Parts: sequence; C-alpha cells; structure tokens
Amino acid sequence: MHYCSSCGASVEFRIPEGDDRHRHICSSCGTIHYINPRIVAGTIPVWDDRILLCRRAIEPRYGFWTLPAGFMENTETTTEAALRETLEEACARVELEGLYTVLNVPHIDQVHMYFRARMVNEEFGAGAESLETALFRESEIPWEELAFPTVSETLTRYFHDRANNQRFEVMVDDIRQPLKSGSSG
Amino acid sequence: MHYCSSCGASVEFRIPEGDDRHRHICSSCGTIHYINPRIVAGTIPVWDDRILLCRRAIEPRYGFWTLPAGFMENTETTTEAALRETLEEACARVELEGLYTVLNVPHIDQVHMYFRARMVNEEFGAGAESLETALFRESEIPWEELAFPTVSETLTRYFHDRANNQRFEVMVDDIRQPLKSGSSG
Repeated sequence: MHYCSSCGASVEFRIPEGDDRHRHICSSCGTIHYINPRIVAGTIPVWDDRILLCRRAIEPRYGFWTLPAGFMENTETTTEAALRETLEEACARVELEGLYTVLNVPHIDQVHMYFRARMVNEEFGAGAESLETALFRESEIPWEELAFPTVSETLTRYFHDRANNQRFEVMVDDIRQPLKSGSSG
Repeated sequence: MHYCSSCGASVEFRIPEGDDRHRHICSSCGTIHYINPRIVAGTIPVWDDRILLCRRAIEPRYGFWTLPAGFMENTETTTEAALRETLEEACARVELEGLYTVLNVPHIDQVHMYFRARMVNEEFGAGAESLETALFRESEIPWEELAFPTVSETLTRYFHDRANNQRFEVMVDDIRQPLKSGSSG
C-alpha cells in the first residue's frame, strides 16, 4: 500500500497514537487503513462413502486437488460462502451438516473454515476454476497431489472421525509451516 | 474507496472479467481491490460461576457491556486474537476451553467467534478501551445494557448449556437484524 484509497495522498507506515502496531496511515487525511485476515470457506461434499474433490484450474497450486472452497465475500455468511463455492467450483448442491474445521493459517493471514456437507444428488462438474471434479473413496484420495495443508488436515480428520467415533466435533488448529513459493493455504 | 492504494490512480467500481460482482478496479494499473469480511475474536471469561464483562470506553456502544473481543490482526490466529483482546480489554489471563459461537453478521461484514475461557486467577481490570470490568452471576447480567446481539446470543446460549447439558457444542448462527445507528455487531 502506497497511496490512501480515500484521498489519493501518500501513506506512512507507522504506529498510530494509542495503538501498538504499524498501520498504513494517510499523510494528508489521516485515515488509518487496517488490513485483517480473510476467511476461506468450503465444504467436504459427501456422496455415499465418497468425497468430491476439484482439480484446480488456477494458481496457486494449479493442477492439484482441493475441497471446494474460496474467499468469503462481504454481505454473505460463512455458510452461504461455503455453499456458493461448492456450487461454483464443483457444480454441486449440498446440504450443510455442521462446521467441522477452523484452521488458522497466520503466515498468509487466512482462516479456513470447512463444513461437512451431504450432496443432494450425484450431479457435479467442473466450474470455471476447476479442471475436473471427481468422487474419491478414502483409499483413492490423491494425498500427494492435494493443494493445501488445510485440505489434507480436514480430510485426515474426517476419515479418522468417520472410522472411529462418528462425532465430527469441531476442530480449531493452526497450520504453521511455511509453504513452497507460489502456494497458499 | 476512490483511489488505487498501489499506484494512486482513480478506481472504477465494476465487475471484473470472469467475476460476478462489483469490485474497485484501478483505471491505470488494473489492480483489483477485494474487500472481505473481518473476524472479531473474543472470550467468555469464567471465574467460579461468574462471567467477566467489560463496559466499553469507545464507540460504537460507549458505556454498554460486552465480552472482551476485537478485530483479529494479520499474522495471528483466532485463538491468539481472543487471548490478546481479553488481556487488552479486561487485563485478564485465561485458558481457552474451546470455540463456542461463530456468529455471522453479514450486514456489517463481520464474523464473531467466541471461545469459552477459564480465568487463571481473579485478577482483572479496565484496559484502555474499557471504562470498567466486573464479574457477573447469571442473575446479575445487565441484559438491557449489553453492547451487541452477538454478546447477548453467546451469553444466552452459554447459560442454557451450563444449566442443561454441559456440552457447550459449537454453534454457527446468523445475526440478521439491522441495528440502531451507531452500533455494530
């Protein structure tokens, strides 16, 4: 950030009075420009014993497999965002069955939230941001070709809970490791 | 937003190619400026059978009571944000006991996340953004003077669960009603 989005003057990067961290502050109108983490919302779409995954048609992680998910937009709720992303990326209609993972990814200023979801029918397809979509049994999951650690962690936890207790309690966890250049999440 | 924060040129408000909603787009460098919902993270600090509340020293809702909470910052996790806000606003150290409410507030583009928390000792006080802080039993909660619907909903749910099942399952809900001018959350 170099310029004030309100008045167009240059911004300074300093600690405002009464604050304790650096912010971009307009040198002319004084507006403080806060930048905060973004929410990525998505689903674990289930059909019988299979999970619907999407192969990414966009960077980062072009060609890798992911659960349908994306940035929550203003004016929507986390559940609306999860449903919208599932429809946009996988052309799938689902019914949400509850929040499942809340994964902090502080090195990229994101929080990923996945909901368990039941596909309402077996219809799905590749949206604009997907190369292809497919249903996978646990033994078929392409673990080495998953796009993001938050997807791996959510799927690992899901299969564990499905096999062991069927309770699917909400998990809050942190993804701390830095990733390879060009990846996110 | 009137100017591009990258190059200082004026921005247009239109739908980018391949998108389906209006964004601020730089007329010169083409940067698309996305604006996304913000997370407010906080705690329900418990000492014996009492809850720690803060009376707000800032707008919106100056003078009203709230649970300690505030905007999550870049580079931190939701849990770190909740602990930091509890220390800053109520000078209280707590141990988190689990995520409790995730409340979408789409008309102000926020998601409020409250964690149950056990105070590690009876020390607390008023931080810079609080007029005073105090411990309240259920019968003493100033329901008519609570600052935000997300606080009311979180406390109502907490006392219900405490009396009925002690399970404190995570709740995802939406706060839809528009609020009086000058309030938020």
